Amino acid sequence: MYGEVLLIDCGEGTQIQMQRFGLKWRSVHHIFISHLHGDHYFGLPGLINSMSLLGRVAPLHLYAPAELKPIMDAILEVADTVLSYPFYFHPLPEGSALLVDDPSFRATCFPVDHRIQCHGFLIERKTKGRKLLPDKCTEFGIPAAYYDQLKLGNDYERKDGFLVKNEWVTEDGPSPKKYAYCADTLFTDSFLPVIQGADTIYHECTYLEADADKAVARFHSTAKQAAEIAKRANAKQLLLGHFSSKYKDLDPFRQEAEVIFPNVQVSIEGSVYEI
Amino acid sequence: MYGEVLLIDCGEGTQIQMQRFGLKWRSVHHIFISHLHGDHYFGLPGLINSMSLLGRVAPLHLYAPAELKPIMDAILEVADTVLSYPFYFHPLPEGSALLVDDPSFRATCFPVDHRIQCHGFLIERKTKGRKLLPDKCTEFGIPAAYYDQLKLGNDYERKDGFLVKNEWVTEDGPSPKKYAYCADTLFTDSFLPVIQGADTIYHECTYLEADADKAVARFHSTAKQAAEIAKRANAKQLLLGHFSSKYKDLDPFRQEAEVIFPNVQVSIEGSVYEI
Repeated sequence: MYGEVLLIDCGEGTQIQMQRFGLKWRSVHHIFISHLHGDHYFGLPGLINSMSLLGRVAPLHLYAPAELKPIMDAILEVADTVLSYPFYFHPLPEGSALLVDDPSFRATCFPVDHRIQCHGFLIERKTKGRKLLPDKCTEFGIPAAYYDQLKLGNDYERKDGFLVKNEWVTEDGPSPKKYAYCADTLFTDSFLPVIQGADTIYHECTYLEADADKAVARFHSTAKQAAEIAKRANAKQLLLGHFSSKYKDLDPFRQEAEVIFPNVQVSIEGSVYEI
Repeated sequence: MYGEVLLIDCGEGTQIQMQRFGLKWRSVHHIFISHLHGDHYFGLPGLINSMSLLGRVAPLHLYAPAELKPIMDAILEVADTVLSYPFYFHPLPEGSALLVDDPSFRATCFPVDHRIQCHGFLIERKTKGRKLLPDKCTEFGIPAAYYDQLKLGNDYERKDGFLVKNEWVTEDGPSPKKYAYCADTLFTDSFLPVIQGADTIYHECTYLEADADKAVARFHSTAKQAAEIAKRANAKQLLLGHFSSKYKDLDPFRQEAEVIFPNVQVSIEGSVYEI
């Protein structure tokens, strides 16, 4: 996962925006699609094709609603396209499930409550232990074969009897992190147990509380409701998004959420948020 | 057709670029798709959906390869989408055919030679007769019921016996025009009879003549070949496009074509070309 890009949902133009914001397609090995409304996946066929045109060889894993498979198959078939890389389609189950258990991260899906079947995703970065300082390792003459021991925090005793302290040749590695992407959803606490204790929760808020009736009618949430979820999940940070285009000013979303939950970010396309 | 936008092919991001360049979606009533390679239609689902989200009521006609129909149907079905407007899918036949015969324009498709089934389109703007000068018509007291006669070039005799000359209240209307869009194609003269005498021919030239072998292998054309078609079709103007992204400078395309055919334009996204 370090240096890897996990792509969650892929609206039209994603491939262009990724290039614009310097995200490398070749760093993407896993794509997660929450549901089959166009703004969440119409960029997928283009991205998958472009990767092939550029001669990608690394496998690509797609986790998406099962109904997408025949659509993707048909799109490739009518164009007589054979992808340059192995492409694995993993249909999402109806309920919660562990999707990926990689040495560096774990991805779980959980159902949310939208007009059509829709899933959120919990991404958990695993700790990888101590981080090596390669120059220092070389300086102290530590053989590469011992590097895994260093990552576990062990010291190294040289043949001349000199003890190399672990902290001289390593530093703290990245800490484990939990990121919950709650997709498009009506206000519901059904997935609270899954996202409990997340470092960052992304929760949609298409509307402000004044339009709560619209939110219900369209299976979306308000900023207040998103904050309620973050609070009850004991999250450290709330990332708001999916604002209706009718609102020109996004600051009221932050204000409404901050009344309930203190650490709120309003997501802006192309921005980077520390989890 | 006057004030109407005919959309030929619809790559990813077309809806965004149309907004950017001030082309109104509501002016589009006919969309033509040449073939099912992604760069020619991946923007279609998004455009069709967005029109519906904005509450379009006017019918939309899509002319495209038959294999696109089940894909579009599936995309709408999995999203549980019912479009807000009547949407008509017209499958393209294998050969040439008249697709639309509107009072103001005619659209014909013709097969070209590409890796998969692919069509070019001939758009013929019909003459609409004389163009009314509304202020002058009012000034001379001509009733609106007589306007159609004025468009046909007739004079008007008032009740007081005064003869209003046609040229006082009308001016020359738009002349008929022929535009041929030759899509993605290997060099072929098979469609020369259809596009003969076109005012403007759009012909792809993915490559320069130095890469003619690549053009053949990939079912594309060179700038020289495009110019050859324009010359043999007795066109007035050649519009070049679909350049391989490996070329950073497009001027050599113009130069190569101009050796054979004098009036060449290199198409640039967002530009307007008089037909």
